[in-house]
Amino acid sequence: MYKVKVFVTLKNSVLDPQGSAVMNALHSMNYQDVQDVRIGKFMELSIEASERNIDELINEMCQRLLSNPVIEDYRYEIEESVPK
Amino acid sequence: MYKVKVFVTLKNSVLDPQGSAVMNALHSMNYQDVQDVRIGKFMELSIEASERNIDELINEMCQRLLSNPVIEDYRYEIEESVPK
Repeated sequence: MYKVKVFVTLKNSVLDPQGSAVMNALHSMNYQDVQDVRIGKFMELSIEASERNIDELINEMCQRLLSNPVIEDYRYEIEESVPK
Repeated sequence: MYKVKVFVTLKNSVLDPQGSAVMNALHSMNYQDVQDVRIGKFMELSIEASERNIDELINEMCQRLLSNPVIEDYRYEIEESVPK
């Protein structure tokens, strides 16, 4: 069993209106030191080990469903967890 | 200048319909090995160094705006970046 953490972020060249809204909200709450906010997604997947290569599997899932490769980047971390 | 990464996740006891929807989509795309999906938020903040303690500042922002402490947990990582 693998625990996979996937981080999906907007590419740097893509505007992030949600991040701007959060930054404005923080400024209006008097957190003036915040210079920039970018918002992405964080996914935790539990994947049963199989004969398929886990990196290949995750890359395929990220490209086909979990991220939009046109405007988003992704990266991931794999933790192997021993089944109880 | 600090680069802060904030991860906001639903508490384990809280249902995650978005995660279930993604899991069902993955199953229907023939990724049957995926056992569980939980979806959270990932935020990258750039914060100007000030006299305030950075941990205290981030915890306050997370509790007041960035997460909903009733149903969500958060954690964060701080990277200090040298201004150019």
